[in-house]
Amino acid sequence: EMTLSQLEKGGYPHFMIKEIFEQPKTLADSMRGRVNVDENNITLAGFIDNKEKFLNAKRIIITACGTSWHSALIGKYAIEEFARIPVEVEYSSEFRYRKPVIHEDDIVIAISQSGETADTLAAVELAKSKGAFIFGICNVVGSSIPRNTHSGCYTHAGPEIGVASTKAFTAQVTVLTMLAMMIGKEKGTLSQEDYLKIVYELARIPEKIGVILKQDSTIAEFAKTFTYAQNFIYLGRGYNFPVALEGALKLKEISYIHAEGYPAAEMKHGPIALISQEMPVVVIATSAGMYEKVVSNIQEIKARKGRIISIVTDGDEVVSNLSDHIISIPDTEECLVPLLAAIPLQLLAYHIAVVKGCDVDQPRNLAKSVTVE
Amino acid sequence: EMTLSQLEKGGYPHFMIKEIFEQPKTLADSMRGRVNVDENNITLAGFIDNKEKFLNAKRIIITACGTSWHSALIGKYAIEEFARIPVEVEYSSEFRYRKPVIHEDDIVIAISQSGETADTLAAVELAKSKGAFIFGICNVVGSSIPRNTHSGCYTHAGPEIGVASTKAFTAQVTVLTMLAMMIGKEKGTLSQEDYLKIVYELARIPEKIGVILKQDSTIAEFAKTFTYAQNFIYLGRGYNFPVALEGALKLKEISYIHAEGYPAAEMKHGPIALISQEMPVVVIATSAGMYEKVVSNIQEIKARKGRIISIVTDGDEVVSNLSDHIISIPDTEECLVPLLAAIPLQLLAYHIAVVKGCDVDQPRNLAKSVTVE
Repeated sequence: EMTLSQLEKGGYPHFMIKEIFEQPKTLADSMRGRVNVDENNITLAGFIDNKEKFLNAKRIIITACGTSWHSALIGKYAIEEFARIPVEVEYSSEFRYRKPVIHEDDIVIAISQSGETADTLAAVELAKSKGAFIFGICNVVGSSIPRNTHSGCYTHAGPEIGVASTKAFTAQVTVLTMLAMMIGKEKGTLSQEDYLKIVYELARIPEKIGVILKQDSTIAEFAKTFTYAQNFIYLGRGYNFPVALEGALKLKEISYIHAEGYPAAEMKHGPIALISQEMPVVVIATSAGMYEKVVSNIQEIKARKGRIISIVTDGDEVVSNLSDHIISIPDTEECLVPLLAAIPLQLLAYHIAVVKGCDVDQPRNLAKSVTVE
Repeated sequence: EMTLSQLEKGGYPHFMIKEIFEQPKTLADSMRGRVNVDENNITLAGFIDNKEKFLNAKRIIITACGTSWHSALIGKYAIEEFARIPVEVEYSSEFRYRKPVIHEDDIVIAISQSGETADTLAAVELAKSKGAFIFGICNVVGSSIPRNTHSGCYTHAGPEIGVASTKAFTAQVTVLTMLAMMIGKEKGTLSQEDYLKIVYELARIPEKIGVILKQDSTIAEFAKTFTYAQNFIYLGRGYNFPVALEGALKLKEISYIHAEGYPAAEMKHGPIALISQEMPVVVIATSAGMYEKVVSNIQEIKARKGRIISIVTDGDEVVSNLSDHIISIPDTEECLVPLLAAIPLQLLAYHIAVVKGCDVDQPRNLAKSVTVE
C-alpha cells in the first residue's frame, strides 16, 4: 500500500528527483502558448503589454536570491547580448539595504520561485517607491511578488516541493531567454536569422533534456566515487558561469559538501591554490562558448592533479580525454546551453546526497521559501 | 649574517607579513598630497583632469580580477552611494569575451596591482574600441594598463612581493573611496557635512590600522585552533560583503583551506546547510552597517553550532557574547570599515598558513601577476 507522500512522489524516491525528471514537461509548459515554431515566433504577454517600457529602458536591474540569483545572471547575459540594454544583477538582501541608484526609466525584474521571498519583496517595494517599472518572474500564481509588481511572467513549472530548486530554475532561465529574445527582436538588435535559430532550438530543449535524463544511472554510478569529497569546485565561462554557481549550490544544499562555483578564468587569481588530487572539479566545457579557453583552464587544473568531471557536447574528444568522468549533452545554441548543462549537475548533486544518506527533500537548516529576512 | 632576502624582508619572516604591517605607511602614501585634512579637502589629479567626463557619466563599469575585483565591489558601493552613478562590476575574463553593452558616455575603470593582468588589459582594449573613457587604478608605475588607459590614479602602495595581495588591496579601496567622494562632492550628491566627516576619518585610517596590528599576537594565538579546518565561511553585508570575499580569498590562496565568502543574508538560500560544529564562520559585524541584521544572521549560525569568529567594533557586547573569538577594530565611517576590517582577516589567513607550514610568499600554483589569460 502506498502512502500519500509516495503517491505524490509518483513512484520516485524523492520529490527532487521527480522534479528533475519533470523538466521536459515543465519546460514545455513554460513555453506553451509562448513559443510557436510553426509560426517562428515567441509571444510573452508580459512583454507585449509593456513593450514601450522595455524598448525604452536605459537599464535593467534584476534582483533575486539564491538559485533565482543564478538565473538572473544568465538573464543578464542574454538581455545584454540580444537587447543591448545594460543589466545589473543584485542580491535582494544587499540591494534593499544600500542606497542603490534607481531611475524612473529603469526596469526592475524580481525573480522568486515562491513569490514570497522576503528580501526580494522588500527590494520590489524599494524600487517601486523610486518610480521604476517592476516586472516579476515567479512560479507560484497569485503570490505576493506577482501581486506587488506592475507586470510579469509566470514560469509555469508547477508546484516545486523539493527544497533544492530544479525545475523552477530551468523555467526561470527559459522565461528570461524568451524575454531577451522578444526585446531584441523588437529593438532590431537581434537579427531575424538568429532569432529564428534560437526559437527553433528553444522548442527542442524539452526533448534534449529527455535525452540527458537517460544518463541518470551512469551519473548515479560515478556519484558514488565522490561521497568522500569534502570540497568541490565548479567552473564555467560565459553563459555557463552561472550554471557552475548553481551546480555548486545544489551540492551544498543537499549533500553538505562545500562546493563553490567560479568563472573558470578566475582560478589563477587565487582559487587554483586549492587544487590537489583530493579536489574534484566540475567543468562545463561545451562546444558552444569559449571552448578552447575552457580547455586551457582544464589543462591547468589537470597539471595540478585535480580530478575532473566534465559536461561536454556529444562527440567531444579533447575535453573527454582530459577528464576523469564526462557527461555529454546534445548541442544547442550557446545561450540555451544552461538549460541542458544544469540537468546533469542536478543529478550529480542528487545522487551524491542519496549515497551519503542525506535528507534530499528536507536538507538540514533550510526552508523552501525564505519568507523572513 | 643576513641574506639579501632577509634584508629585503626587513626583519619579518615573510614578505606578506611585512606588507601587512606596512599598511599604515602605504595608506598614508596613497593619501599623500591627496587628502588634506587642514583644508578639509581631497584632490585626485586623475579626477580633476577629467572632471566633466565623471560628472556626465551615465554609468561606470569596473573591470578587474581576483583581489582587485573585490576592491571594485567596494568601489561600486561607494560610487553609487556618494556619486549616484550606476556602477557595474565585471570579471575581466567574462567581460572581454561576451558582448558587453558599452556606450561612449560610459566610464570604464580597470583595476590591477601589477598593471599587467592579461584579461584586464584585454578588457581595456575592448572598452577603448567602443569609445568609452578608460581610467586605470594600478600600483606599478608605467606598467601596461596605465600606458593604455586615458587617465588614472596610482595606488602608491610600493612594491608588493607577497603573492597574496594585502597592501595593494587597501590602497585600491582608498583610491576608489577618494574618487567616489570627489565625484559626489562635485555633483552635489554628497553633502558637505558628510564629505568633511569622511575626509577627517579617512585621514585617521593609517593610525587606526596601527592599533589593529597590535592584536597580531592574539590573532596568531587563536589561529592555531583553526589549522584542522578544511573549510571556512566568511560573511559580511553592505560594504563588508566584498571584505568577506577578500578574507576568504586570502585563506584559500595561502593556507589551501576552502574558504568562501557570502553576503550574510544569502546563507539561508542554501549555504547554511553546510553549517555544523566543524565549520568556522568569520563574520564582519561592525557597528556601522546593518549591525542588527548581521546579529540575527549570526544567531542563525550559532543555532546550527557553527564556530564564530567576529570582527566587531571596539566596545561591542552583543556579537562578542555570541562569538567564539572576536577581533575588535576602532569605529569609523561605514564606507571606511573595509580598510580596517580587511586587516585582521589578512593576519588570520597569514597565521593559519604559517602554522600549517605553507609557503606564504609563494603559494602553490600561483603567480604574482597573471600576465597570461
